[in-house]
Amino acid sequence: MMIKANNPDLESWIEVQNGNDFPIQNIPFGVVELKNGKTRCASRIGNYVIDLYAISSYGYFDNLGIDDLRVFKEPTLNNFIAQGQPAWRAIRERISYLFSKENPLIRDNIEEKSKILHHILDVKMMMPVAVGDYTDFYSSIEHATNVGKMFRDPENALLPNWKHIPVGYHGRSSSIVVSGTSIHRPKGQTKADDELSPAFGPSKLFDFELEMAFIAGKQSKLGDSISVSDAENHIFGLVLFNDLSARDIQKWEYVPLGPFLSKNFGSVISPWIVTLDALEPFRVNGPIQDPKVLPYLEFEGKKNFDINLEVFIQPENGEKNSVCRSNFKYMYWNMAQQLAHHTINGCNINVGDMYGSGTISGPTPDSFGSMMELSWKGTRPVKLKDGTERKFIQDNDTIIMTGFCRNNNLRIGFGETITKILPAK
Amino acid sequence: MMIKANNPDLESWIEVQNGNDFPIQNIPFGVVELKNGKTRCASRIGNYVIDLYAISSYGYFDNLGIDDLRVFKEPTLNNFIAQGQPAWRAIRERISYLFSKENPLIRDNIEEKSKILHHILDVKMMMPVAVGDYTDFYSSIEHATNVGKMFRDPENALLPNWKHIPVGYHGRSSSIVVSGTSIHRPKGQTKADDELSPAFGPSKLFDFELEMAFIAGKQSKLGDSISVSDAENHIFGLVLFNDLSARDIQKWEYVPLGPFLSKNFGSVISPWIVTLDALEPFRVNGPIQDPKVLPYLEFEGKKNFDINLEVFIQPENGEKNSVCRSNFKYMYWNMAQQLAHHTINGCNINVGDMYGSGTISGPTPDSFGSMMELSWKGTRPVKLKDGTERKFIQDNDTIIMTGFCRNNNLRIGFGETITKILPAK
Repeated sequence: MMIKANNPDLESWIEVQNGNDFPIQNIPFGVVELKNGKTRCASRIGNYVIDLYAISSYGYFDNLGIDDLRVFKEPTLNNFIAQGQPAWRAIRERISYLFSKENPLIRDNIEEKSKILHHILDVKMMMPVAVGDYTDFYSSIEHATNVGKMFRDPENALLPNWKHIPVGYHGRSSSIVVSGTSIHRPKGQTKADDELSPAFGPSKLFDFELEMAFIAGKQSKLGDSISVSDAENHIFGLVLFNDLSARDIQKWEYVPLGPFLSKNFGSVISPWIVTLDALEPFRVNGPIQDPKVLPYLEFEGKKNFDINLEVFIQPENGEKNSVCRSNFKYMYWNMAQQLAHHTINGCNINVGDMYGSGTISGPTPDSFGSMMELSWKGTRPVKLKDGTERKFIQDNDTIIMTGFCRNNNLRIGFGETITKILPAK
Repeated sequence: MMIKANNPDLESWIEVQNGNDFPIQNIPFGVVELKNGKTRCASRIGNYVIDLYAISSYGYFDNLGIDDLRVFKEPTLNNFIAQGQPAWRAIRERISYLFSKENPLIRDNIEEKSKILHHILDVKMMMPVAVGDYTDFYSSIEHATNVGKMFRDPENALLPNWKHIPVGYHGRSSSIVVSGTSIHRPKGQTKADDELSPAFGPSKLFDFELEMAFIAGKQSKLGDSISVSDAENHIFGLVLFNDLSARDIQKWEYVPLGPFLSKNFGSVISPWIVTLDALEPFRVNGPIQDPKVLPYLEFEGKKNFDINLEVFIQPENGEKNSVCRSNFKYMYWNMAQQLAHHTINGCNINVGDMYGSGTISGPTPDSFGSMMELSWKGTRPVKLKDGTERKFIQDNDTIIMTGFCRNNNLRIGFGETITKILPAK
């Protein structure tokens, strides 16, 4: 499929500075609150937000398959996404056309331009979708291996099912929040190995998990399965995802039914959904899967994406410290396999559902995607520029995650998740 | 609190036959589709459904705190429930008043009566709420002990955390359906103990789990906790819940992150939400909790409810066979403790969220709440009237669950969940 909007030679009449995540080839989707308090579905080029309701009311989206333009003034993208892949694609192509350097339609219309464009600093980023169901996978072999080495058997780190099943579990939708939301350190039950009874208090082993998540763009019916080959048609786009975790609460609660309160006190996504279409130029092969997977998980072609990921810790009033550099391409199980597995039993999916990758660790110690792995259970503290150390996250630390793709001169980025950790309430 | 609608001496001018689950003291809430295709929020007395939009449009709900009567013609109860506990209580009291034997207002108004009342056979029951998040607990000590005996250590059947934590995990909201919906046997990966690799195919160990679930009636904010003493104010009401389970898929997938595809292919609730208010006369003490729970889980008063539960299997074209009689009163952890635990870390809850009890097994073998326990992993097949046996559920079997409270002459019931299991697709 030819996507004109992906042409790397395109330039916009909106200035895009070198290193900006949002060139005209990106055209992500999000939801903003304007200064007047109204919410709008939006896209972004450089540092300018495009109000999709305003632009559509001038007729620029006519005949693109969206009958009711009010979808663009709803508080989430769900109903826009539900218009279907042909509609999103048409809108993205149209935005590309309208904002191309040579196109005078909006560029030279001062009034329209003033209604359509807002500087990013003049809007507030909102949750882009209402997440119906959220599933978190566990698809990085390096992460699963690290966890197995630390907590189970170093010689048999991977559990027997791991290379056969894209292991996943259900998470909590209500506590998924957008970047910029501060989260209080959770309280809960923990039990020290040498104690008989659990204690209650703030988590002492507070962690991030570097993940990406995809947002479903097309529903399926209860009882139906989505094939691997069709799965990507059900994916609208991706976001960065910080799956905050309280390791001490997790340790005490998670057998036998999985993580619960150790995860559901707050999970953070980046505000702009970068479409799978925009990521098309960055496809790569994933790791070789051995043993061979069952037929319903077999796939053809490049299903991984080369997305550079980085995590920073910023102490209060301090500098940003890069603590992890990883890449989405390391994922053992790809998104198409995850979705095919999720629906093989007839489980239905809805537009706006979110599917997390699981912690994305790479092969080297500086690419591990959580403090638990970076500090190896606290045995190798991470040194910060201010001379302090971190085994886990401290109160008032801010966790920042970034992600971008690059080839030649084209950079398609995700922006960031920024999460300040406040003391327990 | 005095609830007039609970007066056991009340009678309605709508005939309620002996043994009917819906006397005038019940007044549950649900959503129906009328013959004309419109959906309506509804209540029920005997075999008649009360169209809450129709009755409110005659002014009978004026000044009860609901400003916009259109909440009653929405496709779910969520916005009605969100009006708050004083509003639901006032509506329930008003319905009680209007349908009391001596009240002629609607009784003697043929036109109004014809618009407001529909025979239960003339409507289709719909999902009563849009479930945002669904959590399933594991709160029956008999069930947890049975599982531990069968799959772990008979001498140490309960895991170390079980008596300290109301163990729970997140489930899938999208596949929760209303009674009457048929469910296909799921396909998936399973691995026999004597095989090296997993196989793929329809689940061979298909099971029900007898549960109840409560529906949240009041939201809480991210970061806030709900105390045990306040928790019941966040509960709107209860339904019967059949948590269908594929045991062979579960066994292979659930370590370390919990059940996933073994559970999320379909979960069935009864259509009428019986309010916590209606259940007030049936409070009982729960089991004694020893060891003492942590302070945030301590409670006062009677927090369990005496609800008789029964499960039937009906083979195709065959008779109903009672296979289990249990009671909601057996729950070790009560709903107030579940909700206090769920939010102790700041996890937020929304109106319409659903919280399952976990399988409700009683102390005797005929009170076990799943086929896995009733047939003790298939070693003691359950005999049916037609001479066949069941270790697990077969294709075209229908699973029926019922529940009701009774004291003296008052019976408050939940109706039933009816689920036919179709062959794998």
